[in-house]
Amino acid sequence: MAFKTDIEIAREASKQPIQEIGAKLGIATEHLLPYGHDKAKVSQDFINSVQDRKNGKLILVTAINPTPAGEGKTTTTVGLGDGLNAIGKKAAICIREASLGPNFGMKGGAAGGGYAQVVPMEDMNLHFTGDFHAITSAHNLLSAMIDNHIYWGNELEIDERRVVWRRVVDMNDRALRDIVTSLGGVANGFPRQTGFDITVASEVMAILCLSKDLADLEKRLGDMIVAYRRDKSPVYCRDIKADGAMTVLLKDAMQPNLVQTLENNPAFVHGGPFANIAHGCNSVIATTTALKLADYVVTEAGFGADLGAEKFMNIKCRKAGLAPDCVVLVATVRAMKMNGGVAKADLGAENVDAVKKGCANLGRHISNVKSFGVPVVVAINHFSGDTEAEVQAVKDYVASQGSEAILSKHWADGSKGSEALARRVAEIADADRSQFAPLYPDDMSLFGKIERIATKIYHAGEVIADKKIRDQLKEWEAQGYGNLPVCMAKTQYSFSTDPNLRGAPEGHTLPIREVRLSAGAGFVVVICGEIMTMPGLPRVPASETIRLNEGGQIEGLF
Amino acid sequence: MAFKTDIEIAREASKQPIQEIGAKLGIATEHLLPYGHDKAKVSQDFINSVQDRKNGKLILVTAINPTPAGEGKTTTTVGLGDGLNAIGKKAAICIREASLGPNFGMKGGAAGGGYAQVVPMEDMNLHFTGDFHAITSAHNLLSAMIDNHIYWGNELEIDERRVVWRRVVDMNDRALRDIVTSLGGVANGFPRQTGFDITVASEVMAILCLSKDLADLEKRLGDMIVAYRRDKSPVYCRDIKADGAMTVLLKDAMQPNLVQTLENNPAFVHGGPFANIAHGCNSVIATTTALKLADYVVTEAGFGADLGAEKFMNIKCRKAGLAPDCVVLVATVRAMKMNGGVAKADLGAENVDAVKKGCANLGRHISNVKSFGVPVVVAINHFSGDTEAEVQAVKDYVASQGSEAILSKHWADGSKGSEALARRVAEIADADRSQFAPLYPDDMSLFGKIERIATKIYHAGEVIADKKIRDQLKEWEAQGYGNLPVCMAKTQYSFSTDPNLRGAPEGHTLPIREVRLSAGAGFVVVICGEIMTMPGLPRVPASETIRLNEGGQIEGLF
Repeated sequence: MAFKTDIEIAREASKQPIQEIGAKLGIATEHLLPYGHDKAKVSQDFINSVQDRKNGKLILVTAINPTPAGEGKTTTTVGLGDGLNAIGKKAAICIREASLGPNFGMKGGAAGGGYAQVVPMEDMNLHFTGDFHAITSAHNLLSAMIDNHIYWGNELEIDERRVVWRRVVDMNDRALRDIVTSLGGVANGFPRQTGFDITVASEVMAILCLSKDLADLEKRLGDMIVAYRRDKSPVYCRDIKADGAMTVLLKDAMQPNLVQTLENNPAFVHGGPFANIAHGCNSVIATTTALKLADYVVTEAGFGADLGAEKFMNIKCRKAGLAPDCVVLVATVRAMKMNGGVAKADLGAENVDAVKKGCANLGRHISNVKSFGVPVVVAINHFSGDTEAEVQAVKDYVASQGSEAILSKHWADGSKGSEALARRVAEIADADRSQFAPLYPDDMSLFGKIERIATKIYHAGEVIADKKIRDQLKEWEAQGYGNLPVCMAKTQYSFSTDPNLRGAPEGHTLPIREVRLSAGAGFVVVICGEIMTMPGLPRVPASETIRLNEGGQIEGLF
Repeated sequence: MAFKTDIEIAREASKQPIQEIGAKLGIATEHLLPYGHDKAKVSQDFINSVQDRKNGKLILVTAINPTPAGEGKTTTTVGLGDGLNAIGKKAAICIREASLGPNFGMKGGAAGGGYAQVVPMEDMNLHFTGDFHAITSAHNLLSAMIDNHIYWGNELEIDERRVVWRRVVDMNDRALRDIVTSLGGVANGFPRQTGFDITVASEVMAILCLSKDLADLEKRLGDMIVAYRRDKSPVYCRDIKADGAMTVLLKDAMQPNLVQTLENNPAFVHGGPFANIAHGCNSVIATTTALKLADYVVTEAGFGADLGAEKFMNIKCRKAGLAPDCVVLVATVRAMKMNGGVAKADLGAENVDAVKKGCANLGRHISNVKSFGVPVVVAINHFSGDTEAEVQAVKDYVASQGSEAILSKHWADGSKGSEALARRVAEIADADRSQFAPLYPDDMSLFGKIERIATKIYHAGEVIADKKIRDQLKEWEAQGYGNLPVCMAKTQYSFSTDPNLRGAPEGHTLPIREVRLSAGAGFVVVICGEIMTMPGLPRVPASETIRLNEGGQIEGLF
């Protein structure tokens, strides 16, 4: 029998009205702002009304370093959430929203896969509830107001060469990376070189995802640095007086979106900051709200545990006062094989030795997660070609590391396939074994924080940075930003900065290319290697074949 | 007693759930796609199901040339709709959506005023149901795909200097009017000069508003000319293969939005093409749907009757096979005074002579509308300072022109104030007196069509155009575009191209500066004078004071 595609499975979903999904979490209809019949935002009034409740257990799903073989982190998040509900627990999941633009480049963007998906998939890959459009509007209003301020006399004495606030669009458009604006004469302003990033790379996105409410959002927006004067003193968004109007534009976007899994369990899908130049987690407000409404909340973080889990712990949990009760580390037999040196084309053949060899990557992630004081379970996301011997090899390796690995078949079987995983995760979370602590204290120096992550998580031998970069970090410390966490931007494919260096490299050098201050989001971005803030379209973009078919269904998007 | 502001009145509105508003038009709940509790889109299935029904009566509300005194065209549209419902008729109104960007420049954007408004006002001035964001996304996807095509080898042999498709943003951002893109080296493409327009100026907007369904939309999108080759042959959107994906992005935006008036009567608010470089009417799909559901449909067109009504008749009605049963021409005593030479500061004092003198402008519009074979009623939109003698002067003048003028007090009194107008309009529409015919046949030459409008509507003495422009028109005729209507872009303040020439000027010269082909929308834009497709922000933009107050209400937007 041929497998059904994700979209075929999603289209067969028997969705419940979103009001019924809300009811499972005790959200009354009047507190759900519907967007169609299967999506809704949760009202701020309701969120305020549940603040005194006790929090449920927080479960983070993270993964080994991604390989082209695929790991299924979101699939496992969804499958685990359904599994917890299936064994009688009240559980919700929290994941990120998809960016619209990239779906028109490469085929996009299921939320999960197989029988562990969130629906409505089409909407989630298009405009959804308009959150990203609101972020784009708010970001670009500030951009227009900055140039408008300069145009009308530049009272703030902004150095036009040092406007650091760019524009954004939710589209893969390489032509906008580097542009000159305000050509055409006096009426169009002062020409200067600038550019566009993709919306998810906006600091506004990071702020929306870290703010606890609208007042916090407005304060953080005001704190953003948009330009510098000739004397290098910063000009803030607040100086431009854009923070109030931006907050108005983001008023609805701040409210978490509720949808459902294929098994009609509640899923919050909210926020989607870039996992490299930002922290790559869903919104704090969605996670904290879910914790008030469900006994178990399953969430995930972008890329592998070296990036995603590290930022989840050191940025999101620190900022939001959260602590995970259990971490699920997703691995696949296929990815172990690739880490063990097998080419993608050869993944079909059993190769227990390669699995064993590739497990070093998994082992490093296990010990890294444990170093945060949090219990960890490995979920082996089952692929149909995996052999028993291969699966056993992973289990044995994980046992040798003092942890346990559980095979999970949610992709093929939904919650029936993930019950074992769900039971174990619930046991661990209920045992209150977690003694979470971030990896570094607030009052450590910025460079010290970078070194701590590099040595403890990446197992690098040294961190190197030009004097200019070290001086910049010291300048920020002098200005009072020394207490911020650092947000690492590094390749997701390796513990090192070399994407081809798989496994568990040791003693490598971490070169810092650039540092950027996100004063509103509240972190210092540390860029190690090339990072792309505006993708391009491929030679034959997916958009060439995306269309509505005769039945009004979308073709080519998935 | 001080008058309440529009926003104060709107906030006191006793809104009904949008399902109840839909029920008044016979739309079942499952055919309404809700956006919150007070907005919904009407499903295409439902629209398809009512196509065999008889049309209701179509009433167009238009106005004299706008003056700074204000005319209240939308207010009268809403008031007339409420008045018709109040006298027991089943009536709906159809108006345009507001553009988000300009609200952050000048204080925006009520939909109507006083006790004749459409709600929810805040949403309608912000993201509403996301239609404009969808248009922005679809437009910019095409832009990205054009540059991407060139980047990957330019198989279509596009002349990079002749890419006519720009980008759009729904923001007043003068810095983007004229830009150079693709700087920064090989990876970013080929540098070229281009720019951004505001979203409402996009041909995609005009197309969305003229398409009868999604298939028609897709065809028209494919027809758009995006660039030319060195041999001047056009490259179409279809050649770039963007039409399918653009249609997917516009799938929900094509569905009409249903909201309500303060008196809980149904209002369709859908589409908002620029009234200068496009036709300035709400969507065809909203109007034709409303005509199937209501016995009377009240709609409006942008600017004065010389622009708005002319394009409504010659473009929208011609394309959609519609014919108005009655035209309501809105005038105010204050605007008559300004047309009669009174300065804005002196409008408070009674001045019957000035009213009489200013009536010439009204008279010209009356005879123009009649020339389309449609009966016309003048609505005097009452302002509290108008004196009886002034109102009588307008009535007497209109009577002398063989028409009638009715005083309407919907702004102050809602439907109670507009009942007389409603009764008369219903009588006229019911009498089936209209013998609508457009002003020119399809097969007239393009220049002939321009001359026809200039002489018959503007009372110009001559039309002048460089040989280059006349040759361009002939070239389009040779290419098969000669049957298209023309879309005039001219100042709205005068029948002439001089905005300061009020009243009813005669024998002036109409200079054509430029012509543009909108092959997808299906018209030739004729630009007479300066037109601005990207506004700028003022010295102190409204956005500086827009914010959420303690109660979570929006301040400064209205």
